[in-house]
Amino acid sequence: MQTEQLRVERTSLEMFCQQVFEQLNLSRTDAKTAASVLVAADALGIPSHGVGRLWRYVNGLRTGQMLPDAQVDIVVDTPSSLVINAHGAMGAPASVKAMEGVINKAKANGSAFGCVRDSNHFGIAGYYARMALPEDMIGIAMTNTAALGVPTFGRQVMFGTNPLAFAVPADQQPPFVLDMSTTVVTRGKIEVYDRLGQELPDGWAVDKTGKSAKHAHSLLDDMQERVGGGILPLGGLGKAFGGHKGYGLAALVDILCAVLCGSAFGQHVFDTAESSARVSHFFGAIKISCFRDPKEFRRDMDQMLREYRECPAAEGEERVYFAGLPEFEKEQESNRIGVPILRKTYENICEIGKEFGLGNPTVLRSHA
Amino acid sequence: MQTEQLRVERTSLEMFCQQVFEQLNLSRTDAKTAASVLVAADALGIPSHGVGRLWRYVNGLRTGQMLPDAQVDIVVDTPSSLVINAHGAMGAPASVKAMEGVINKAKANGSAFGCVRDSNHFGIAGYYARMALPEDMIGIAMTNTAALGVPTFGRQVMFGTNPLAFAVPADQQPPFVLDMSTTVVTRGKIEVYDRLGQELPDGWAVDKTGKSAKHAHSLLDDMQERVGGGILPLGGLGKAFGGHKGYGLAALVDILCAVLCGSAFGQHVFDTAESSARVSHFFGAIKISCFRDPKEFRRDMDQMLREYRECPAAEGEERVYFAGLPEFEKEQESNRIGVPILRKTYENICEIGKEFGLGNPTVLRSHA
Repeated sequence: MQTEQLRVERTSLEMFCQQVFEQLNLSRTDAKTAASVLVAADALGIPSHGVGRLWRYVNGLRTGQMLPDAQVDIVVDTPSSLVINAHGAMGAPASVKAMEGVINKAKANGSAFGCVRDSNHFGIAGYYARMALPEDMIGIAMTNTAALGVPTFGRQVMFGTNPLAFAVPADQQPPFVLDMSTTVVTRGKIEVYDRLGQELPDGWAVDKTGKSAKHAHSLLDDMQERVGGGILPLGGLGKAFGGHKGYGLAALVDILCAVLCGSAFGQHVFDTAESSARVSHFFGAIKISCFRDPKEFRRDMDQMLREYRECPAAEGEERVYFAGLPEFEKEQESNRIGVPILRKTYENICEIGKEFGLGNPTVLRSHA
Repeated sequence: MQTEQLRVERTSLEMFCQQVFEQLNLSRTDAKTAASVLVAADALGIPSHGVGRLWRYVNGLRTGQMLPDAQVDIVVDTPSSLVINAHGAMGAPASVKAMEGVINKAKANGSAFGCVRDSNHFGIAGYYARMALPEDMIGIAMTNTAALGVPTFGRQVMFGTNPLAFAVPADQQPPFVLDMSTTVVTRGKIEVYDRLGQELPDGWAVDKTGKSAKHAHSLLDDMQERVGGGILPLGGLGKAFGGHKGYGLAALVDILCAVLCGSAFGQHVFDTAESSARVSHFFGAIKISCFRDPKEFRRDMDQMLREYRECPAAEGEERVYFAGLPEFEKEQESNRIGVPILRKTYENICEIGKEFGLGNPTVLRSHA
């Protein structure tokens, strides 16, 4: 596999993506937002959700799965809640609009929640949860996804990777940001094992009989043809390691994102050969000052997070971290020396840029 | 092990526990609440939190760890939030008061959240989350517990089993109720393996070096002496199966329960030889009608839950269920033929009753 990594200047990379989206008829504001979310994933060290997906968005916009000029309507609007119908718009701009609305409502109301329905892939959930941090709020973001997860004791997919994110501000310490899928792994991990020809670890997935899946390739085929088999919820196979808990969390995310606003859920959310699935999101904000002085809260968060970092490491491990710390450190580095992009990914996006007559994003350094 | 099971009449069992609590100077109302929560656990099929713990509560009240007549003060009170200082009261009555407050606020405000600090063991989290169901709200309950969980890559306990519960109403289907610890197992499971002399499965716990723990007995000793080792978060050892996700969830529960109201968190919450730990709880309620017609919501919940039940079972498995379904079925059965209580547990509580001059709870049937 091609693993040479470049460091690409962040602003240049954002501008590049923005221009691609503008040429595909997104408004400047929406294009900027979509680009910002995409590049943030790479900057934070989550390349699975980064510019490597640019071609998917381009494709989505070209095929009409994603509509560049859809009317993003607020269809429910109360002091504590909102529901947005994205009518097939890009996920990121609709989600930023929803999270901004939720934060504004929480300012007055103490807490607020919102759903976005009929939307598309929104990138990293943590991006939206983090938006609450400067307001001294706890930020929440979730999304359902195309079904690829199998419930405990089952053998057919009934829910997506359904990530959830919670962001909590600290003071001197970086914020606590939990951003996790509720399945044990994502499809990308299975694809990597397929490419390497490696046997899957027990507890990641089941085949079409519901037994532990060994062969990545036949699993992916079976999932594609929807004949059974899929990825396991966090906690793995059966109940012995808590698989029923991950299943419950995945269902909960689906309820909050989709059932709460009357949108498609479970097995009814699926990608086809032509297009990826329309999905729904959930956002929330809780104002800390409704409970205690935010300064004191952040001071105690510092203590908690410091204590996690000071926890003695297991033999053979370097250190203990907390949710959001590695991503924070990677972002600092990305801003300093450039966003890490695989050479192969870089070449792919430059290829896309050429189609639109765009120059390449600025490479700051390349190293193996 | 003694596994003969009796069926005990629910009202009689509740009255019995209530009388024990009244004799230990709880008010009639508080005694009734504490008894109701305790017996509900057995009725739902969660005996780890049921009347088998009665002696612990009796002990807690006798040693002053739990105070029968503590003033349960509302110290923060806004339209969307409350903080209660339980001042060492029993967990259940303080928690019911908090959840009632949160539900009342959510009626007017759309959503509301509350913390209880300086409290004691509150029983099953699902009890409080379920209180929101008749109001067409999504109910939330969490608690921190004495530290026994080890963070990913660490070797010292830094958080409790930190359960979280979400309850969501349906229509014809039983409600969805997720009530789960965020560690892979609880201490009780380790104790069972100790009694049976069985080797622990990989991925449940680590020893004091941070490597997978095999021997339940030495693990329990090391945890008791706080020299390292403990239970792993949901997802198990390292990151391969998502252990860092369970760690993040456990931390999140601690933040919401304790940091949000300025209470003790993490390693500072621990049982001693004399007494169990003072803990903190978090409660929430979100009104469904702020998003859509609750009738339509419940209809869609029915469809989702029915589809889970109809998911084809894995070979060798009987059926697929959803969170809360087994507990619902067990409660129906408990109400019909009596609450399942192990003979040994029954004998123990009768022993306690004798001290207080109480007759035994009514046995409806006994079978092996």
